[in-house]
Amino acid sequence: MSVLVVGSVAFDAIKTAYGQRDKLLAGAATYFALAASYFTQVGVVAVVGDDFTDSEMRVFRERGVSTVGIERAPGKSFFWSGEYSADFTSRTTLDTQLNVFATFQPQIPDIYKDYRYLMLGNIHPELQSHVQSQMPTAGLVACDTMNFWISGSLPALKKTLEGVNILLINDEEARQLTGDHNLLRAARAIHKMGPQMLVIKRGEHGASLYRDGKVFCAPAYPLDEVVDPTGAGDSFAGGFMGSLAGCEQAGEKEMRRAMIYGSVMGSFCVEQFGTERLQSLSREEIDARYRLFKELMHFD
Amino acid sequence: MSVLVVGSVAFDAIKTAYGQRDKLLAGAATYFALAASYFTQVGVVAVVGDDFTDSEMRVFRERGVSTVGIERAPGKSFFWSGEYSADFTSRTTLDTQLNVFATFQPQIPDIYKDYRYLMLGNIHPELQSHVQSQMPTAGLVACDTMNFWISGSLPALKKTLEGVNILLINDEEARQLTGDHNLLRAARAIHKMGPQMLVIKRGEHGASLYRDGKVFCAPAYPLDEVVDPTGAGDSFAGGFMGSLAGCEQAGEKEMRRAMIYGSVMGSFCVEQFGTERLQSLSREEIDARYRLFKELMHFD
Repeated sequence: MSVLVVGSVAFDAIKTAYGQRDKLLAGAATYFALAASYFTQVGVVAVVGDDFTDSEMRVFRERGVSTVGIERAPGKSFFWSGEYSADFTSRTTLDTQLNVFATFQPQIPDIYKDYRYLMLGNIHPELQSHVQSQMPTAGLVACDTMNFWISGSLPALKKTLEGVNILLINDEEARQLTGDHNLLRAARAIHKMGPQMLVIKRGEHGASLYRDGKVFCAPAYPLDEVVDPTGAGDSFAGGFMGSLAGCEQAGEKEMRRAMIYGSVMGSFCVEQFGTERLQSLSREEIDARYRLFKELMHFD
Repeated sequence: MSVLVVGSVAFDAIKTAYGQRDKLLAGAATYFALAASYFTQVGVVAVVGDDFTDSEMRVFRERGVSTVGIERAPGKSFFWSGEYSADFTSRTTLDTQLNVFATFQPQIPDIYKDYRYLMLGNIHPELQSHVQSQMPTAGLVACDTMNFWISGSLPALKKTLEGVNILLINDEEARQLTGDHNLLRAARAIHKMGPQMLVIKRGEHGASLYRDGKVFCAPAYPLDEVVDPTGAGDSFAGGFMGSLAGCEQAGEKEMRRAMIYGSVMGSFCVEQFGTERLQSLSREEIDARYRLFKELMHFD
């Protein structure tokens, strides 16, 4: 089954202890789409500017991602620039230019309307609802959000969440959304808002799935070197949703497998700058790392 | 096989969102011994003051812990007082009185000298070395330490570590000890200092075992309510070492099982104030939670 992602396709300039890149193909929907493309058919709905060339489009096409929904608008693409501290414990935003993304009004092309899986990237909750209303037959709707919408647009976000099956956020966002520091209680509160399934991402500490009164914990893959942590959470979401879309149903077993594939894709993402690593993977490498997660977590 | 722990037996005064206790039986060696007592024979070497009554001794004896090594000295017992923020993300030390602990010179009673497992609690590295020298036949030596000794007594600590098999510390201590923010590289550096096995404790994020080029990750058990997080790491160490001491060997399989039993004991510890929960457990409850860890981590 196919996955549609709606969100940002952008350029990033990033500096870490491992070097600097001035123009990286980036954006949440890009990371998501490339990660999911190893598992299933993916479509992207986004807006880019004049600076988005055919060589960037080719990155999507070479991974078999449908680009029909990537609209071109006059102006520049969304641009973000940031610098990480040497130990990656903090990052400084140097520049954010919304550009064409500021007036993004996602329209779902007809060819995507029968896609079964929908990922609502981190955009204004009203736009998320607008997308949902165009995809009434989507079987599974996942959603990301951020502190900015939780504090500034909570009523709209709560309305969006009513129609969402899976919320993927980080631990601080879960605490902020519910006002509860305890994640188990926060998960229950979020279930009551709509999403029957909650994935809490914790960066280097892994991710947890809350579903049907059960918890599943996946660690982050231990890496020798993290080159650029940007996009790890979106790559997780792509691997997670891509893996799910390849299954007949989204039961406990499939969800847990998806959590591991999500962790695998997040771990690959950070090995190189931007989406570089996600462009050059093989399914064999992905499945080999999946097996390493077994070793990492197995006990008798 | 039996485990000897050398460290602090103390009183704590603790305030959390769940209430306040003025005089709790506490100290690292106490948490360790009570947790380990569910798995194996345990002895304690520590010093207490005149304020340490028979009712506290009885807590140890009722768990079958040998108290021959708990020396009484004139004066008061080690006392610590602290308050946790409502969300447990920070704690403030209100008072620390070393009292009789300030001049603690651990002497190992003869009856402990054939104990096979030794836990060097968080005391001055020179005292840790002094204990080691009195236990030449110990088969497995584990060690805890803290930022204070890493920054203030590094040469002595490095000397201690040469004779240590298992180092149990938290992630920040591992980074500080090695000067490397990457935990996989930090683990390799620590192996070179002596310990073939490293356990990195991460509180609510679980714990990781580094051994023989392999990593094993255990999550923290998701709890509805944390009442008092004090002693979780020491309870982990007690469950870990107690479980190991019950095995014929300390291979990969036994180490992983010990990681889970450690996590189980840490999770019980925080459910009540001080050592209250550790005093009243049953092996059935412990094994039931061990099985819940399987559910928490299993995937196909």
